[in-house]
Amino acid sequence: MNDIIRLLQAHRSERSYKPDPIPDEILDEIIESAHRAPTSINTQTTSIVVIKDAERRKRISEITGGQPWVAKAPVFLTLVADLNKTRVGLEKRGATQQIQHSLEGVIASTVDVGIALGTLIVAARSFGLGIVPIGAIRRDPQAMIDLLELPEYTFPVVGIAMGYVEEPATQKPRLPIESFRHNECYQAENLRPAIDAYDLRLSEYWKQIGRSDGISWSENTADKYSLVYFPKVKPVAAKQGFTCED
Amino acid sequence: MNDIIRLLQAHRSERSYKPDPIPDEILDEIIESAHRAPTSINTQTTSIVVIKDAERRKRISEITGGQPWVAKAPVFLTLVADLNKTRVGLEKRGATQQIQHSLEGVIASTVDVGIALGTLIVAARSFGLGIVPIGAIRRDPQAMIDLLELPEYTFPVVGIAMGYVEEPATQKPRLPIESFRHNECYQAENLRPAIDAYDLRLSEYWKQIGRSDGISWSENTADKYSLVYFPKVKPVAAKQGFTCED
Repeated sequence: MNDIIRLLQAHRSERSYKPDPIPDEILDEIIESAHRAPTSINTQTTSIVVIKDAERRKRISEITGGQPWVAKAPVFLTLVADLNKTRVGLEKRGATQQIQHSLEGVIASTVDVGIALGTLIVAARSFGLGIVPIGAIRRDPQAMIDLLELPEYTFPVVGIAMGYVEEPATQKPRLPIESFRHNECYQAENLRPAIDAYDLRLSEYWKQIGRSDGISWSENTADKYSLVYFPKVKPVAAKQGFTCED
Repeated sequence: MNDIIRLLQAHRSERSYKPDPIPDEILDEIIESAHRAPTSINTQTTSIVVIKDAERRKRISEITGGQPWVAKAPVFLTLVADLNKTRVGLEKRGATQQIQHSLEGVIASTVDVGIALGTLIVAARSFGLGIVPIGAIRRDPQAMIDLLELPEYTFPVVGIAMGYVEEPATQKPRLPIESFRHNECYQAENLRPAIDAYDLRLSEYWKQIGRSDGISWSENTADKYSLVYFPKVKPVAAKQGFTCED
């Protein structure tokens, strides 16, 4: 155990922010930390758009389905899978980029966005800031593309709101570790008992914090994943050049 | 600036390991840290397979194209996009999962794998361990599926080797920050000058460390991205149920 592990294991997504700005020198260090994170074969396909402007944050809060914390937190970062950057590099060499047609292109650039996001989270929290990742920019990716003036071969994958916390969140329990960690090979038999235990535990947690609308994990997951959640992702990604043909 | 930021900004991928094992209590804390990382709408679709067995690590080093550090580092983790876990949850509720047919399903689960990987990296490094992410498990995903006994609706997205470092790596320069950070909206005009500057800087770096086979960023990227790098990803993902139709 050490201070970094303690910070990581105390993770909570915060949804209550003071309007206080984040000092520029702190934001610079947070972004530079993500810039140093590893990337697939050094392609460095992540770009981050930093949004501080209040009107634009309000617009993103609408795009993401009316999340008030997105408008209230002083900084919103959009993490972009950026195969335009590599396209410019290929053009310099007289080569034509093909990777955007492949599922590998989506997966490699999305993993790298995730690594950058994980790094931003730790970096921000090291300065005492709260954060909440916002996947719901994928609810209407075209609106994000228009707002951020994103070119072809880029896709807005995920956002993160950050700022100083007003009312700290409590820590939500996780599925039991045996549904997450598998030793040497996948242990399918652990899943159903882990889910049963977690459904009870999470319902208990909602009661404890007085959330009468809280539902179990399996109910929440069934609500979301029995349909194509965020159906605009595929057509907008294709329009941007990510065709996933190969 | 603080100790966590210093650690993050000093990131290097290490490729030289001592055979010394990682104590179980340290590995447990590293994995628990990733288990606490945020996930899309609390679906917790990441699973991690921990491989310590030397024969199996040797097999992964072959699958990934003969990377000796994969066989030598005492621990290899495979991060899995796990929509089998959610499927079991939906089944409990009498619902049929659809998300695996969608690009959103791939992106949401892959971002979460990336966040977990970013968290594992920081956690491992906080204990003085070296790490190297291994995307090349996607070179032959079916071989990884067979080795790890992964069920339908799961996909091995990325690996990470970790251990105590023998010969520390030097820190590779990055593309200039203005190709990574964009303020309020995307700044396309910064890209080509940033790439030109970096091509020179990286070539200089290869010379400094005596790597005669080092090439510029734009050349390396052109070699890899003018074709479908890892072409088995799409057919194997489809076979696993990730069809990307919607």
